[in-house]
Amino acid sequence: MSNLDSKLTEYAEKFNAVLRNFLNSLKCEPKILADSLKYSLEAGGKRIRPSMMFAAGELLCVDRTELEQYALALELIHTYSLIHDDLPEMDNDDYRRGKPSNHKVFGAGNAVLAGDGLLNTAYSILLSECRKGNKYVAASEFICESAGIYGMIAGQSADLFFGAEGQINEEILGYIYENKTAKMLTAPLVVPAILTDGKYYSELKLFGINFGCLFQLTDDILDVEGDFASLGKSVGKDKKEDKCTAVKLFGLEGAKLRADILADKCLKILNGVEGDTSFFEQLVLYTLSRKS
Amino acid sequence: MSNLDSKLTEYAEKFNAVLRNFLNSLKCEPKILADSLKYSLEAGGKRIRPSMMFAAGELLCVDRTELEQYALALELIHTYSLIHDDLPEMDNDDYRRGKPSNHKVFGAGNAVLAGDGLLNTAYSILLSECRKGNKYVAASEFICESAGIYGMIAGQSADLFFGAEGQINEEILGYIYENKTAKMLTAPLVVPAILTDGKYYSELKLFGINFGCLFQLTDDILDVEGDFASLGKSVGKDKKEDKCTAVKLFGLEGAKLRADILADKCLKILNGVEGDTSFFEQLVLYTLSRKS
Repeated sequence: MSNLDSKLTEYAEKFNAVLRNFLNSLKCEPKILADSLKYSLEAGGKRIRPSMMFAAGELLCVDRTELEQYALALELIHTYSLIHDDLPEMDNDDYRRGKPSNHKVFGAGNAVLAGDGLLNTAYSILLSECRKGNKYVAASEFICESAGIYGMIAGQSADLFFGAEGQINEEILGYIYENKTAKMLTAPLVVPAILTDGKYYSELKLFGINFGCLFQLTDDILDVEGDFASLGKSVGKDKKEDKCTAVKLFGLEGAKLRADILADKCLKILNGVEGDTSFFEQLVLYTLSRKS
Repeated sequence: MSNLDSKLTEYAEKFNAVLRNFLNSLKCEPKILADSLKYSLEAGGKRIRPSMMFAAGELLCVDRTELEQYALALELIHTYSLIHDDLPEMDNDDYRRGKPSNHKVFGAGNAVLAGDGLLNTAYSILLSECRKGNKYVAASEFICESAGIYGMIAGQSADLFFGAEGQINEEILGYIYENKTAKMLTAPLVVPAILTDGKYYSELKLFGINFGCLFQLTDDILDVEGDFASLGKSVGKDKKEDKCTAVKLFGLEGAKLRADILADKCLKILNGVEGDTSFFEQLVLYTLSRKS
């Protein structure tokens, strides 16, 4: 196991313990509501956002216990976005992480509510942190902005709109990548920076945006080159649905070249950060060549 | 114009000014996202939640400017819930407030995102209040709990589940009424109470729950006795879809009797509150005999 793999496993295990505590405390009714929330939260996934947050915490010497509830809120928001994204009227995906999507198991009505419930619960968690003081409010607000109508939701809306219009250019693609994907991958790095009153705030924010765009670029490449067994979700969908992707705009080789350039940019940004940044360097290289 | 009407008009106008400010500051892209949010927020409605909050503020001597952002957040949450509720996989309603539902105008995918966007923006507003201190955090948390998986979402989930099951009894009906409707009508009263450090907290909470159940009861009665022109939404839907309602469980006369009992209870609770409670008394009597 590489150093990155072992770190990712360690962080994911630590996060899953936090998640288990949360799930054990879940007492909502009717049972189908609790079941549908649990189903998607327990479906696995790499827990990349919590892992990035814990790694950034180590880099900046922020105690992990300070970050756990933020990591939980972020993962809840990420999971809600997947549930709503998979709905028939959105991306219409029957599989997620190798399992039937939430709406295939519980029906679309319950899936809408499961997503709403996760989003609302994420804010219940983020509001609880606010009593600790203003920097905790600022951290909660950063996550909120990353997820909202000037962040992820704007990206999803643009993806849906320009995909349906068949309209695409570099500016639109950049807007979609940055908002739909990159902002929610930036938040895990910026939250620890805010809790240290701004240590490497700009560098980590810039790294997050570029890394997030790299992540989405390689996701688009995998939609062409990947297979269902490794990805746990349908492939070849972007082309079928004529989605706005880098592959469509630049071709497969053009997209790969851009991924290389973004990876270089990420590594250069890390050069300006003191301390052990090897986790993030390895994460960039892994993402560049990822198969899932 | 009755005293209640003139008060409701006054509060709605004051709220609409707050809403206009918010809408003018909305700069999200793509345009369809902003348009879909605005469409549902501007569709009118009685602004009953903001009005109740402003009235409770007057009763408890809380400055209205202290409440405006909470009222805005509540109305955003209420509006998101209507958009998601009207979706084909939920209540499948083509009309709302006399106009085509959000998904009929923008498509179901955009309607999902419009709802998500409103919910997220409500929390952006509630988080902004948190810097003012702990009682402001508590007020935000009360709204969050009223809207979430131990509040409105639980009620919607139960409504969907037990409706589909054809299962109904008094306990289930009470759970649905209290969670789906009453908690979001309690929050406008409890927020001002929290901001006064708890003045009449219990009384206003109890009034809100009973008033909310009365409100839902008369809504169910209107679904049988009302007409599209007054209501601006489809009628006769509960029976067609075999929904859990008081009319189904107790019959029309039985439902009306229960509405009378709830109204009496509301008025009795108000007797225990000092100051001018005439707005709320009139609101109870209006709700009991409402035609829309």
